[in-house]
Amino acid sequence: MSPIPLSERQRKIAEIVRQEGPVAGETIARELGLSRAALRSDLAILTMSGILDARPRVGYFYTGKNTLGLLQEELSSITVEDIKSVPIVVSSEKSAYDAAITMFLEDVGTVFVVEGPEGLLHGVVSRKDLLKAALNPGSDLHQLPVAMVMTPLSKIVTASPEEPAASAARRLMDHEIDCLPVVRLLDQDPRRLQVLGRVTKTNFTRLLVELAEGKGGNYHS
Amino acid sequence: MSPIPLSERQRKIAEIVRQEGPVAGETIARELGLSRAALRSDLAILTMSGILDARPRVGYFYTGKNTLGLLQEELSSITVEDIKSVPIVVSSEKSAYDAAITMFLEDVGTVFVVEGPEGLLHGVVSRKDLLKAALNPGSDLHQLPVAMVMTPLSKIVTASPEEPAASAARRLMDHEIDCLPVVRLLDQDPRRLQVLGRVTKTNFTRLLVELAEGKGGNYHS
Repeated sequence: MSPIPLSERQRKIAEIVRQEGPVAGETIARELGLSRAALRSDLAILTMSGILDARPRVGYFYTGKNTLGLLQEELSSITVEDIKSVPIVVSSEKSAYDAAITMFLEDVGTVFVVEGPEGLLHGVVSRKDLLKAALNPGSDLHQLPVAMVMTPLSKIVTASPEEPAASAARRLMDHEIDCLPVVRLLDQDPRRLQVLGRVTKTNFTRLLVELAEGKGGNYHS
Repeated sequence: MSPIPLSERQRKIAEIVRQEGPVAGETIARELGLSRAALRSDLAILTMSGILDARPRVGYFYTGKNTLGLLQEELSSITVEDIKSVPIVVSSEKSAYDAAITMFLEDVGTVFVVEGPEGLLHGVVSRKDLLKAALNPGSDLHQLPVAMVMTPLSKIVTASPEEPAASAARRLMDHEIDCLPVVRLLDQDPRRLQVLGRVTKTNFTRLLVELAEGKGGNYHS
């Protein structure tokens, strides 16, 4: 998909008004080397779509409103499910060292600790947790159960697959963490969480890049 | 700033067409409980602005083009300078342990190694580098110079303050790293880099959240 939203001339007009506004139609026409009449339909489209606004005896000015509003709409339709990665897990019986090795092998910054035959979420371990444990004098990561260094279930912040990606990103920022487990409740029991995936700052950075490169349309079926 | 891009009715029309398109104007009118005539100007705005397209005997369909194109324009105007954080640095004479402590005190995942009275960039150390060093049997982070675990200057990927934020984000993804030093060349010498800041996946995630919440206008002076 190759996005061609406004004509080249309309983009130029919007940019002139953004930089110089408020500016008279005559001035825009002069800068582009065109007649006022030649600009009329472009200015009509730009004002009707809300990108520019016009005031009598003042001229055209840039609102920025349309851009941001459409952007919000675009973003609100992209869900956690659309951008999540596969979860990387270790069993709660493993050591902190095992968790670190899993992290290096899979090249991830966070590993989920799971337990039981259903693989229910039990905790989250980050590089920061492991580095802190490793710096502790006299500690041996081989002897340390992963459960001793993880963030326990009661303190884990999660995401649901249906929620907008941007609301999960907001939660990451508010809690100053790097990763959210994407989970589903089993039996309506808040202590029994099935792990469906993970969303991290990497997923959000990738989403930003894809939107900037005009690939956001991929998220709509 | 409160973004009100399209009227409530125009948003509803766009959403109906996104979900059901191609769809006839009569169908849209019926679903909204309006006459075809009442819809005419809204449909004209939506098609002229490129959000919808119309084909004879087929109906209206959603392009997604305009949204993404405007989004691309919005994003291309936000620079690294607009979103960067202050750099956190350690001197190249310090130990790996000192770098780890700085990381915990400042709560950052990456620290820049600098040297000399001008504080020129010498290397980059991440949590991953330090965790790997800590896991190495027999290693003592107190005795290990930070220069032994850092990524050296010759292999560092950097950002300039003037470049679009999205292009820096793209570089992070391509190189699978978490952080770029924001630098300026001193004396046109590529080995003499002054550190102006850092951009990380945290900055890009925050940018995504702010755009989703309609705060992107803050980035324009």
